[in-house]
Amino acid sequence: MTAPNLSTLWAEVLIDEAAAAGLDRVVIAPGSRSTPLTVAADQHPTLDTETHLDERSAGFYALGIGKRSGSPAALISTSGTAAVNFHPAVVEAQQSRTPLVVLTADRPPELQDSGANQTIDQRDLYGSATRFNRTLPAPDPADRSLRSLRTTVDRALAAAEPPNPGPVHLNVPLRKPLAPVEDSTALRGPLPETGAGKTGRDGPFVRTHAGTVSPSDGAVAELRTLIEQADRGLLVAGPLAPDPARRDALYRLARETGFPLLADPLSNLRFGQELPELVLGGYDGYLGTAGTAAWPDPDLVIRVGASPTSKALRHWLRDAETRQFVIDPAGGWREGTFTATDRIQTSIPALVDALKDVNAAVRSGWTERFHQAEAVHQAAVADVDAPGWEGGVLQQVVAAAPDPATVFVSNSMPVRDLDRYGHPRAADLTVLGNRGASGIDGIASTALGAGSATSDPLIAITGDLAYFHDMNGLLALGRFGLDTTIVLLNNDGGGIFHKLPIADFDPPFERQFRTPHGLDFEATEALYELDFERVDPAEIGTAVAESTTAPGTQVLEVRTDADRSQQLRERLRETVGNRLADRE
Amino acid sequence: MTAPNLSTLWAEVLIDEAAAAGLDRVVIAPGSRSTPLTVAADQHPTLDTETHLDERSAGFYALGIGKRSGSPAALISTSGTAAVNFHPAVVEAQQSRTPLVVLTADRPPELQDSGANQTIDQRDLYGSATRFNRTLPAPDPADRSLRSLRTTVDRALAAAEPPNPGPVHLNVPLRKPLAPVEDSTALRGPLPETGAGKTGRDGPFVRTHAGTVSPSDGAVAELRTLIEQADRGLLVAGPLAPDPARRDALYRLARETGFPLLADPLSNLRFGQELPELVLGGYDGYLGTAGTAAWPDPDLVIRVGASPTSKALRHWLRDAETRQFVIDPAGGWREGTFTATDRIQTSIPALVDALKDVNAAVRSGWTERFHQAEAVHQAAVADVDAPGWEGGVLQQVVAAAPDPATVFVSNSMPVRDLDRYGHPRAADLTVLGNRGASGIDGIASTALGAGSATSDPLIAITGDLAYFHDMNGLLALGRFGLDTTIVLLNNDGGGIFHKLPIADFDPPFERQFRTPHGLDFEATEALYELDFERVDPAEIGTAVAESTTAPGTQVLEVRTDADRSQQLRERLRETVGNRLADRE
Repeated sequence: MTAPNLSTLWAEVLIDEAAAAGLDRVVIAPGSRSTPLTVAADQHPTLDTETHLDERSAGFYALGIGKRSGSPAALISTSGTAAVNFHPAVVEAQQSRTPLVVLTADRPPELQDSGANQTIDQRDLYGSATRFNRTLPAPDPADRSLRSLRTTVDRALAAAEPPNPGPVHLNVPLRKPLAPVEDSTALRGPLPETGAGKTGRDGPFVRTHAGTVSPSDGAVAELRTLIEQADRGLLVAGPLAPDPARRDALYRLARETGFPLLADPLSNLRFGQELPELVLGGYDGYLGTAGTAAWPDPDLVIRVGASPTSKALRHWLRDAETRQFVIDPAGGWREGTFTATDRIQTSIPALVDALKDVNAAVRSGWTERFHQAEAVHQAAVADVDAPGWEGGVLQQVVAAAPDPATVFVSNSMPVRDLDRYGHPRAADLTVLGNRGASGIDGIASTALGAGSATSDPLIAITGDLAYFHDMNGLLALGRFGLDTTIVLLNNDGGGIFHKLPIADFDPPFERQFRTPHGLDFEATEALYELDFERVDPAEIGTAVAESTTAPGTQVLEVRTDADRSQQLRERLRETVGNRLADRE
Repeated sequence: MTAPNLSTLWAEVLIDEAAAAGLDRVVIAPGSRSTPLTVAADQHPTLDTETHLDERSAGFYALGIGKRSGSPAALISTSGTAAVNFHPAVVEAQQSRTPLVVLTADRPPELQDSGANQTIDQRDLYGSATRFNRTLPAPDPADRSLRSLRTTVDRALAAAEPPNPGPVHLNVPLRKPLAPVEDSTALRGPLPETGAGKTGRDGPFVRTHAGTVSPSDGAVAELRTLIEQADRGLLVAGPLAPDPARRDALYRLARETGFPLLADPLSNLRFGQELPELVLGGYDGYLGTAGTAAWPDPDLVIRVGASPTSKALRHWLRDAETRQFVIDPAGGWREGTFTATDRIQTSIPALVDALKDVNAAVRSGWTERFHQAEAVHQAAVADVDAPGWEGGVLQQVVAAAPDPATVFVSNSMPVRDLDRYGHPRAADLTVLGNRGASGIDGIASTALGAGSATSDPLIAITGDLAYFHDMNGLLALGRFGLDTTIVLLNNDGGGIFHKLPIADFDPPFERQFRTPHGLDFEATEALYELDFERVDPAEIGTAVAESTTAPGTQVLEVRTDADRSQQLRERLRETVGNRLADRE
C-alpha cells in the first residue's frame, strides 16, 4: 500500500477494513474535511457510493438501507453541524435496532476548542444513542496504530450487528492535506503489508464470531409446560425487522401451538407467502370494545418484537391476569405497560427449535372468538363508503400492493390506520416504518433507502406533515433513478391531534396543534423527478397497482378529512363492538 | 393559581416564570407530549408564539431571533426525534454565543427505557453544547418543588445571557393528562400564592445580577504602555454579535489610538453610521500577496471577536512577530492559529474606558499603507466585468442595501466573498451569519428569525446548496407574513470545492464534491409565499434596492459560474498584489 499523505493512508485503511468486514454501501454528504474518506470510498472497488446534499436526509436514507437489508450502510460527513444532522437517524437506528455505521470527519485534536473554523465537540456526539463510539486518534503511520485502526473498525461493524443491532460512530480526526496530493508525510511504497496494518490476512483483520443466544433449559421446560397446559394461549408480535428465518420460526410456533398470532403491521408477520390462518391483524378494531368485555383473559401470552403499535392491544394485555413472556435476544425491556411476568433472552428460532413437538391443546372456542371478531371487523370496514376516509386508503393500498412489495409506512396516523385496517395477506410484503422513536422526520429518505436495498417495488405511505418534513429526501429520486410509489394522505395538518383530548380546546387547537399549512404539493413535481397525481380515495388501490408497474416515481395524493376520519374510526370500533356483543 | 391537573400546573409555572424572567418569544413545533407547555405559552398574556412544522427549521428560526435581538427565544417540542432536530441549531448557538432556550417535553421517568412509544433518552441530549442543562423532576405540586422549578428556570435563562451567552436546555417530563382537562390531580383553587412557588414577589422569582467583567489594572497598564510605544498598531475584529455599546467603544478605541481596524464582515463594525475612516474591509484581497511582502510586521495587535473569516488575515497575523492581545469577556480561546501572546478577560467597553486618554502615536506611513491597499483593491474589484461573477454580487448587494438593513449571509462562499468584496459603508447595516459552526444548514430559517426580530428590511444572501438545505424554512414566509429579500447565488453545486486541492482530482471531484443537482428553484414560488425572479448578476444591486421597498418576499436568483469566479478571485488577488508591489 502506498499513499501520497498520511490522512489519505489513514482513510484508505479505514475504508478498506470496513469493506473487508462486509460493508458494501456508503452514503456520502459532500464536504472538505471528509475528503480522504470520500475519496477512499469512491475509489474502493467493492463499495457503492451515493451522494446526498442534506445530511439529515442522508442519515435516514442510510437507515432505510439497514432496515430493509439488515446490513449497515456507512454514512460519511464533514465536521460541524453536518455531523449533527445525522443525529435524528442515529436515534431512530438505536431505538429500532437498525445497523448503521457513522463516520464523521473531525478536525485534529490540536484544533479542538480553539475557535478554528467548523470545529465543534464531536466526541460522544450522539450521546447514549450508539452501540459503539470512538474518537479515533489522529492519523499515524506506525504499525501498531494501523492495527489499532483496523481492529476498531472491525469492532465497530460487529457492534452494529445482532443480537442488538444499532448505530456505531467513528469520529475521525484528519489533518491537511486532505486531497490525495503528495506531501512530506507521503509514505513511499510499496510499504510492507504490515504498513497498512495487515499481516497477510484475507478478509477482515479481525473476524467477530457472534454467539447465538439460546434459551436456558429451565425456561424452555417451564414454557413448554405452560403451553401444554394453556387453554387460551396467545402469541403477540410487535415490530420486528424482516428476517425470513425468524418469520418461519414464528409461523411454525403458531401452527404447533395453535395459538392465535396477533401480528403488528410492522412485525413482518402479518403478510407472508406461507401465512398461517392463525395470523390476525384486525385486533386494534375490536379489543377493548363492548364486544370483548365478556371474553375470558388469555392464560398465556408469548410476546416478541417491540411494543405493539396498537394501544387497544397494549391495554387489553395490561388488564389481563396472566403470565406474559417477553422473548428478546438482546434481553431488553420493550414493554411500556409493565405487565410482563417473564423475560427470556434467546433468539426466536432457537426458542422455537427448543419447543419442538410441544403438545398444545387450545380450548375450543378461543381461536374462533378471534376469527369471528376479525370477520365482523373486516365486514364493517368493507361497508364504509365515506369520502376522504383515511382508514380505507390504508386498507386498499395494502390489498393492492403487488407480491412481492416493500411497503414503508409513516408515523403518526398512517401506521395506526395500517394496523387497524390492513388485513393479513398471503403475499410477500415487507412492511417497514420508523417505529423506534416514532418521528415524522426522514420518512421519504428512509423509504427510499429501503427501496434501494431491494428489487421489490416500493410503496411509501405518508401524511402531509411527514411529506413536508423530508421533501429534501425526494432529491434522491432523480439522482439515483429510483422507481417508487408514494401515497400522500393530505389532510392539511396534524390529523393525529383530532384523536387527542386537546381537540376540545380551541384556541389553541387550530393554531398550535392542527396547524393547517395550505401547501400545494403539486409543486414538488417541478422540483424533483416525480409525477404528481391527485387520486380519489376510493380509487387509490387501482392507482397504486398501476404505479407499481409504471416506470419512474408517482406521488399519489389523496385528499382526506382528518376530523371525519377520526369520527369514523371511533364509530367503526363502536359498531364492531356492538355487533360482537350481540353475538356473545 | 388554579390548574385542572398537575402537568398543566407545572407547565404554567415554568412558562410564567420564564416570562417573568424576560422571555418574550416562543417558537413551537406541534406535538402531543408538549401540550402543557404549548398551551401555557399560547395563553400567556405577554408571550408571542410562532408555530413551525419542521423542528430543524424551528431551531434555527429561534436562533436567528437570538442573533438579531441578543435575547433568547424559547423552543418547545414534543419528545423523540423532534427534540433531536434542534441539535444543529443548539450547536450553532453554542459556538456563536447566541442565547437560546430549549424546552423539550419528555415522557416521565417511569417510562424511560421501557419500549414506550416516542420515548428516547433525552438527558444531556445536546451533549457538551449547552451552557446549562437539566432534566426536571416529574411534575409535583409541593411548594418546595415549585420553588425549585422557578429557580431552575431563572438560572437557565440567566445562563443563556452574557458574558458567555448560549443555549440552555430544560428537558421537561410530563404525565398525562396533557390537555387542560380536570382530573384527580386537579389543584382546586385559589391555591395560596406559594402553591405556585411565588411568595408575593414581583417579576422573576430569582433575579440574577450578572457581574461586569473588568480588566485587571496590570493588563490595562501594560496595554496602555504598549499602545503608546507602538509604531504600527492594529485592531482586528472577528465576528461579534451586534451591540451598539461595544461598536461605539471599538470605534472610539480606533480613533483614540489611530490604529487601523480590520473589521470582519460579521464583526458588526465594518458598517455603521459613525464609521471611522480607520475601518478597513478589503484586507482579504491583499494581505499575503506580493504587495505586502515588503511590509513591516505590526508591532501590536489587539484582537476582539471570534476568529476572523479571512484566512489571508489569519495567516498574515500568524506570521507576524508581535505581541497579540485577545480580548474576550468570557475568557475563551478563539484563535485557531495559536499566535496570541496575551489574553485579557474583560468586557470591551470596560477596557476601552480604562484606556481613556491613551497617548498613541502611530508612525507615519503605517495607516497609509492600508488605505492605499484598500484603494488599489477597490479599484481592481470595480474593474471586473465578467458574467456570472460571484464576488461582484456580494459587492453590489452590500452597496445597495438600504440604511438601515439587516443582512444575513450564508456560509460557505457568500460570507467569504462578502469579506473580500463588501466595502465598508457609513450605513447602519447589521450583518449576521452562522459563523459559529459554519454550517450551510438552517440558513433561511436563521435569516427569517433574525428578520422577525427587527423592523429593518432583511436581505438574506445564500448559495444554492444552503437554499436547498433549508427550503422548509421558507414556510415561515407565508405563516408569519415576512417581508424579505433573498439573494440566491446559484452555481448548481458546491462552489467552495473549486478552491480546494480536490478540484484537481476528477473523478471523484464532480460526483462527490461539486455535486451538481440541476434543481430549478423557481418551483419554490408555487410552494411558498414568494416571488421568484431571475436577475442578471450585473443588475443585482438595483433588484435588491427595488425588492427592499416592495411588499412580500422576492427571491432574486443570479446564475453564477463557480469555476470562473474562483479563477477571478485568484487573478484579482494577484493583480492587486502586483500593483501594490509596483508602488513599494
